[in-house]
Amino acid sequence: MRRIAILGSTGSIGQSALDVVESHPARFEIVCLAAGKNFDLAFEQAKRWRPRLMSVATEQGAEQLRARLKAEGISGVEVVWGPAGAVKVATHRDVGFVVSAIVGVAGLEATYEAVRAGKTIGLANKECLVAAGELITAEARRQGKALLPIDSEHNAVHQCLRGGSMEEVHTVWLTASGGPFRNTPKSQFPTISVEQALNHPTWKMGKRITIDSATLMNKGFEVIEACRLFAMPPSRVKVMVHPQSTIHSMVEFVDGSILAQFSVTDMRLPILYALMYPERIPSDMRFPVMDLRHLEFAPPDMEKFPCLRLAYEAAEAGGAKPVALNAADEVAVAAFLDGQIRFHEIPQVIEQVLEVTKSGKLESIQRVLEADADARRVAQLKIEQLGGSTLSLRPASAM
Amino acid sequence: MRRIAILGSTGSIGQSALDVVESHPARFEIVCLAAGKNFDLAFEQAKRWRPRLMSVATEQGAEQLRARLKAEGISGVEVVWGPAGAVKVATHRDVGFVVSAIVGVAGLEATYEAVRAGKTIGLANKECLVAAGELITAEARRQGKALLPIDSEHNAVHQCLRGGSMEEVHTVWLTASGGPFRNTPKSQFPTISVEQALNHPTWKMGKRITIDSATLMNKGFEVIEACRLFAMPPSRVKVMVHPQSTIHSMVEFVDGSILAQFSVTDMRLPILYALMYPERIPSDMRFPVMDLRHLEFAPPDMEKFPCLRLAYEAAEAGGAKPVALNAADEVAVAAFLDGQIRFHEIPQVIEQVLEVTKSGKLESIQRVLEADADARRVAQLKIEQLGGSTLSLRPASAM
Repeated sequence: MRRIAILGSTGSIGQSALDVVESHPARFEIVCLAAGKNFDLAFEQAKRWRPRLMSVATEQGAEQLRARLKAEGISGVEVVWGPAGAVKVATHRDVGFVVSAIVGVAGLEATYEAVRAGKTIGLANKECLVAAGELITAEARRQGKALLPIDSEHNAVHQCLRGGSMEEVHTVWLTASGGPFRNTPKSQFPTISVEQALNHPTWKMGKRITIDSATLMNKGFEVIEACRLFAMPPSRVKVMVHPQSTIHSMVEFVDGSILAQFSVTDMRLPILYALMYPERIPSDMRFPVMDLRHLEFAPPDMEKFPCLRLAYEAAEAGGAKPVALNAADEVAVAAFLDGQIRFHEIPQVIEQVLEVTKSGKLESIQRVLEADADARRVAQLKIEQLGGSTLSLRPASAM
Repeated sequence: MRRIAILGSTGSIGQSALDVVESHPARFEIVCLAAGKNFDLAFEQAKRWRPRLMSVATEQGAEQLRARLKAEGISGVEVVWGPAGAVKVATHRDVGFVVSAIVGVAGLEATYEAVRAGKTIGLANKECLVAAGELITAEARRQGKALLPIDSEHNAVHQCLRGGSMEEVHTVWLTASGGPFRNTPKSQFPTISVEQALNHPTWKMGKRITIDSATLMNKGFEVIEACRLFAMPPSRVKVMVHPQSTIHSMVEFVDGSILAQFSVTDMRLPILYALMYPERIPSDMRFPVMDLRHLEFAPPDMEKFPCLRLAYEAAEAGGAKPVALNAADEVAVAAFLDGQIRFHEIPQVIEQVLEVTKSGKLESIQRVLEADADARRVAQLKIEQLGGSTLSLRPASAM
């Protein structure tokens, strides 16, 4: 019986994790949940799962949840709120496994505290490894507990790595869909509209990650995550464009053998893998093997997608650079979605922020959060400078 | 330092194994060699490797080798011959690892004795597992020693299996090139000439294995090998036609994840893997990952290729049936190459032999060899019967 806390239970990954728990009632027990701002769903989850402790985003939400639980005659669910509430959920003494699925830096502190409390982590939050990867992986090593990736690429790598030891790895190959502008000439990038950029060929996702997929920054983040998670130098983590996204990733060993992982595209599969590791238990998620046909692979174009290059540079530098990469990207993507800058200016903003970001080790999550805030301020400034000069060039659709 | 004996050192696999040893002089030592009838090459190998014990196929060959070594002033190489010589090589007290690469039932006894002597085996001989798989795997389990497959498919499966436990395997997927008649209508099979059948699209191999690839019997043998090697029922070993032969094989786990292995097509890679297992050491055999594009996969047509169906039936029945399958196939293929029967009659002969073969466990290698001889006699008889009735129909090219 694995005793589970889910950070981000009302998000997409959180809901999939609850689906997995639902399918295997004898294996898993929900001990704590940390929900977001969807208070109705948080109430439904509290009613269904009866967690010992439930956190929601705001104090008002917590009061509302307490009242609704009382009205239904449900007792035994302690309700807390905010970042401190999420930390309580993450570090609850009865929890053994924490699913970290709060999006953004908001998930950082709770996840770090879970690691410090000796929990095993199923990691879906990107920022944990991009912004605080060095801190978090060092602490997990100290605790002797696993950080198990819950996303198709790193989960695939984790599976392939079982074919050898870490010293025997030659290259980690992350596959990338290539995004909607894979075949668009670079000269057309300045005229890409928000609508075009949000139209991802393979996945339906949140807006920021959809834009990050279009700029390949998402893959850049994954490169950094892979470096931190698997203790690999950036030169040994490579990206391969694979529009079908069938093969989720691969590992090439020193002897020349390559192992690749694939499966149906369903987040429940990596979640189940992480929750059960090192065991595997049956699921009904069967991949139709004959669908492997007509796969395509190509190298990524770093000149056309500078975000990927910037991510490699940030991975190499470490410290505050990856923090700034993530923060500047979030701000720049928001500005693009808001019509303040154009598509090709996203990497320009990020590059300018990285240029003024000092490298050097960050000693604590507090320092990470400060570096994050600094980078956001600088990014905002750069956007304002750009906005003034390019406003007149912007196509009407992005206004 | 691994102390190695090679059974079949003058064959293709044996020479590749010596190449691997040559590339890693600090890792491996050649202790004994069992050569075939290429006495010149056997002499060169004795000169280069100075094995403590060397066996050749015949007494005359042994005398010749002794004389040539003496003439060159080489001492310390004991020369033996024949099946008893191969057994001496396989069981030499200083040997830890035996590469089993003598083709045909000739390699069976020496390999079995090596297993009984507690050696770790790198297995390239098909007959060991097809004809005597139950005996050999039971003995290896008793000795607690590994049988490591040296062929691209089973070696790939072995690597993929590292991603989970045996209880967690759902299906082993063996890939098959599909042979030269993958797209040929079954109605044209009676007119297939020897030349057409020997023209394999991907590999250059010996004649029998080329015909076995054209009938898919080779894949049928591999199904039986996989069942024995990995203790899987035939229903869980499946074949997938994959003309590019890029992916060497795959393992599907119960949770829905699939691991696939690929690499350059070079026998030195699985040999190095087996020799070093569970370690991996660097090689310069790098697969160009972008070459993965345009892979095709399709299910095999068992109606068109009855050999594959017959192999599944023999795998299920066990005992003397797989022995008869292998023996009848060898005789039928020889008859086809000799113009005595036509291509589509190969599976007919085998099926008739299987029909009169009693099932039941074979208790010893001696019983395996008797069942083998029985099946060969019956196959010869069936061919003579067929020959009389179809001679007039045979195309001129096959006469």
